[in-house]
Amino acid sequence: MHPYRSHSCSALRASDAGTTARLSGWVHSKRDHGGLLFIDLRDETGLTQIVIPAGSPVMETAEHLRVESVITVTGEVVLRDETTRNPDLATGDIELRARELIVQSSAAVLPLQVAGQEHYSDELRLRYRYIDLRREQVHANIRLRSAIIASMRRRMTDLGFTEFQTPILTASSPEGARDFLVPSRTHAGKFYALPQAPQQFKQLAMVAGVDRYFQIAPCFRDEASRADRSPGEFYQLDFEMAFATQDEIFAVLEEVMSGLFTEFGKGRAVSTAPFERIPYARAMKVYGSDKPDLRNPLLITDVTEDFAGSGFGLFARIAADGGEVRAIPAPGAGGRPRSFYDKLNAWARENGAGGLGYITFAEEGGQGPIAKNLEADRVEAIRTKLGLKPGDAVFFAAGKGHDVAKFSGLVRTRIAEELDLIEKDAFRFCWITDFPMYELNEETGLIDFSHNPFSMPQGGLEALNTKNPLDILAYQYDIVCNGIELSSGAIRNHLPDVMIRAFEIAGYPESEVEARFGGMLNAFRYGAPPHGGSAPGVDRIVMLLADEPNIREVILFPLNQQGEDLMMGAPAPVPPERLKELSLALNLKPAVKKD
Amino acid sequence: MHPYRSHSCSALRASDAGTTARLSGWVHSKRDHGGLLFIDLRDETGLTQIVIPAGSPVMETAEHLRVESVITVTGEVVLRDETTRNPDLATGDIELRARELIVQSSAAVLPLQVAGQEHYSDELRLRYRYIDLRREQVHANIRLRSAIIASMRRRMTDLGFTEFQTPILTASSPEGARDFLVPSRTHAGKFYALPQAPQQFKQLAMVAGVDRYFQIAPCFRDEASRADRSPGEFYQLDFEMAFATQDEIFAVLEEVMSGLFTEFGKGRAVSTAPFERIPYARAMKVYGSDKPDLRNPLLITDVTEDFAGSGFGLFARIAADGGEVRAIPAPGAGGRPRSFYDKLNAWARENGAGGLGYITFAEEGGQGPIAKNLEADRVEAIRTKLGLKPGDAVFFAAGKGHDVAKFSGLVRTRIAEELDLIEKDAFRFCWITDFPMYELNEETGLIDFSHNPFSMPQGGLEALNTKNPLDILAYQYDIVCNGIELSSGAIRNHLPDVMIRAFEIAGYPESEVEARFGGMLNAFRYGAPPHGGSAPGVDRIVMLLADEPNIREVILFPLNQQGEDLMMGAPAPVPPERLKELSLALNLKPAVKKD
Repeated sequence: MHPYRSHSCSALRASDAGTTARLSGWVHSKRDHGGLLFIDLRDETGLTQIVIPAGSPVMETAEHLRVESVITVTGEVVLRDETTRNPDLATGDIELRARELIVQSSAAVLPLQVAGQEHYSDELRLRYRYIDLRREQVHANIRLRSAIIASMRRRMTDLGFTEFQTPILTASSPEGARDFLVPSRTHAGKFYALPQAPQQFKQLAMVAGVDRYFQIAPCFRDEASRADRSPGEFYQLDFEMAFATQDEIFAVLEEVMSGLFTEFGKGRAVSTAPFERIPYARAMKVYGSDKPDLRNPLLITDVTEDFAGSGFGLFARIAADGGEVRAIPAPGAGGRPRSFYDKLNAWARENGAGGLGYITFAEEGGQGPIAKNLEADRVEAIRTKLGLKPGDAVFFAAGKGHDVAKFSGLVRTRIAEELDLIEKDAFRFCWITDFPMYELNEETGLIDFSHNPFSMPQGGLEALNTKNPLDILAYQYDIVCNGIELSSGAIRNHLPDVMIRAFEIAGYPESEVEARFGGMLNAFRYGAPPHGGSAPGVDRIVMLLADEPNIREVILFPLNQQGEDLMMGAPAPVPPERLKELSLALNLKPAVKKD
Repeated sequence: MHPYRSHSCSALRASDAGTTARLSGWVHSKRDHGGLLFIDLRDETGLTQIVIPAGSPVMETAEHLRVESVITVTGEVVLRDETTRNPDLATGDIELRARELIVQSSAAVLPLQVAGQEHYSDELRLRYRYIDLRREQVHANIRLRSAIIASMRRRMTDLGFTEFQTPILTASSPEGARDFLVPSRTHAGKFYALPQAPQQFKQLAMVAGVDRYFQIAPCFRDEASRADRSPGEFYQLDFEMAFATQDEIFAVLEEVMSGLFTEFGKGRAVSTAPFERIPYARAMKVYGSDKPDLRNPLLITDVTEDFAGSGFGLFARIAADGGEVRAIPAPGAGGRPRSFYDKLNAWARENGAGGLGYITFAEEGGQGPIAKNLEADRVEAIRTKLGLKPGDAVFFAAGKGHDVAKFSGLVRTRIAEELDLIEKDAFRFCWITDFPMYELNEETGLIDFSHNPFSMPQGGLEALNTKNPLDILAYQYDIVCNGIELSSGAIRNHLPDVMIRAFEIAGYPESEVEARFGGMLNAFRYGAPPHGGSAPGVDRIVMLLADEPNIREVILFPLNQQGEDLMMGAPAPVPPERLKELSLALNLKPAVKKD
């Protein structure tokens, strides 16, 4: 017989009764019951009840066992009687009557319990992550993560993509965030950087003739942690396609995402391909966000013209000043008490707005402070425009440009939450497309790249040479699920001339572009295919599917919020001789300025 | 029609003749042929011949194209006539008559050619890796690597293993090699380390209740490069199993390796499971190596007793001194000229031996300098022992312990090469088992661990307490293919008491063990399953299957031998403000000793 187990802890059934079995696992719980001792023995697959009869030679060993000790039990599989069967347990028809019990590993008193639902601090859980991970929910999350990643790989492979590993010890990237640096021992004074993303390498793979690349790619950013962002490392489903249109890239991700979310969504509704495509400008107008949550049915309407020159002086002045007024419908809110509107007004002030104007609609027409001053035909025009009926209400956000767009988006979300309008048990995807290539830096008054400088401008060189930069759009897109941005992506700019001109518009002379991005530019000079891609965040996808708001719940051994590994003790001081080898010295005090 | 392609460059067939097709790819070659211009257009899948008729409106553009430019060609698929068909090309029955030609990316003069087999320096190839990777052999290698890794994943998953990602920003490991360090910005003066292997994390995953873990794991060692070792990062098929016997671990790797090598071996013979198990002590005796190449049929025989007290004084004295004499057969070498033996003798001296004694066998008996002095019955006994016949020869290595074992192994290899006895087109696997737990440090005279201090000693605590440490074996094993060690592995020591005692024997007090390995030891105190595993090197496996002796041929974007990325410029200096942020300063000059 196998020295540890003839079966897993979830395998034995009524049909095994009478046979001898051997199981190994953790002592999940122990119960003393009139001289008999019951042990729930647990392995990764499930539980089996062990019974140790009174007077058994293994009783003494069993009595002294602490929970979470690891044991091997051999004995007879015995049918439970009707009254003690447990239909909730796969092995609930039987129990194993212990004849032999070997302690493989004796557990000390535990700092946290595995059985039960007790809440422990992050600090305790991460310090003893190897115990925490035995708990049902977190173990399920981690296994879900593995299953999701395996499914991603399978789906990408089925679509003709090939996985390649790109370097981890590499050069500093020109992207936004801060790199982690790795000092080189053999090149004194020089440093590798960990990749923020394999962006440049995947583009170089395209230049190298790879047609469809993907990678479950480890990425590293030296940034502060957030609930949805690990301090340090994270994974993305990085992919890139040669000779592909934007629609083809969308089709790939639509197939992968709708498949994945259907597979692991536990029956929740999932958008089917094609996902809605929403140009950036429209998203800001209609959803007040470039990450719209499509589970929220409310749409924002521009009602500036309805207030222009109207009797409601505040909004009339805003309209006259070049500002805008946006209306957010609140179906069914008409009957809410005054306190409802007061609360929202206070919330608006906390969020930097002057307040939150509204009209409620009764059978006899619009009501409330705004309706009192606004001409009745204008009130009616607004009602009609928004398709509202008696019993509904409408809120208004007024102001200029981006500010009013953003605030109306906040109002849209808040109202939908208040009215419980957000679709439940659903994953709603959309694409945000046609991001502007440039934006005006409000501080400097100069033209900046608004997103990724390496995206292809729509209209190419001609657009760059002839259009107002602020009117130029890029082949740049985001994929959004339930209001969460899973990834940016773009058709890349593979033409050195276009890239140099694009940078010139943003104020970078050619010499600087060559100095900073010469590696990529040079590669594009030796025959580069048109290409594009995207890179959805693996951790965020798992968080959505596991319904966990904290990223640490879906990572096997996460760093804590301060970027520390409490279990292994990282980061840690290193001996001075290691630093000397690396031609480094600590510089712990703030540098003193010399004259 | 798709803006870039209706077909790939390997898709068109005779049956497509008469239709319009659009292809995109690289200009692989151009030939001018009596006014016609022929272009071989290449993408990742293959080649199609484009023909541009004399007088075509696209002729001028085409004439100015440099090879490796990227173009899109639209035109009619035309059958080639009998005489110009190319049966070696999938698309060799047709050509595409260009009607429209768009240059997507114009190539500058190339630093290295894609078509053809020209040899370029590593420096040039790595600097322009994105061009080098378009070349047939290296592109095939890189795709082979991807296919091998995908197959590994599938095979491990089929065997019930689940892939988990372990941390890359972690703590310094207690293993042998040098870590790469990553300074922490937020924890001044502290450092993360990149993992040399996920050894501790996979063991902690076992403690966390994972039953079968695997990972295609990136590993990092700050070591000098060798032909078969990248400077910096490498990948291993890391796996670990709970409640598993050594035989079960062997069975997993046997199934994966024989499957993998059969799948990608292109018809080469592959050992079938079970692979031969060779205890370390026997391997050193019979193969003179703990990495025996089983394609070599020669076996080493101990003939010490045949020389003890014999007339061949040199070996008799070695035998009397406690040394050993080992015989390496050389079937069929008996008829070789004297120069053959002289050359081998010279080779032996270059390798630190006194020379290489031998006997050749003719019908009339043993011949040569040794046979002249050795008694005839002893010569005959040796011949019989080795199963030699007239026309064969035997070589001798004499000396003490490890030295004679190693040297006889070198002779075994050399003789087999000389006589062309090494099996061709085969992958021969074996396990080396039962490595000694300890060895005597010849310099200090003290007991050291001979391999991994974390392996389980055979016989457990009792063996540690009662046996001569040098007689204790470990559950430690290597898997070897064609004389190349693919991986070590072990049943791990999961018992804190046994670990502390094992370290005590090697001279480490308990306090030091707790200080250095406290994280793991503590984990083992809360219920740890017996477990073991291994971690075959991915790069080496790909090298074997691709038949490439240099690891850079099987990595997408490798560092050069000096650990530099010539394409991206890494490692590189960083601005002083970055160092200040990291509380570091350069310390480039050798430290001056202070009194």
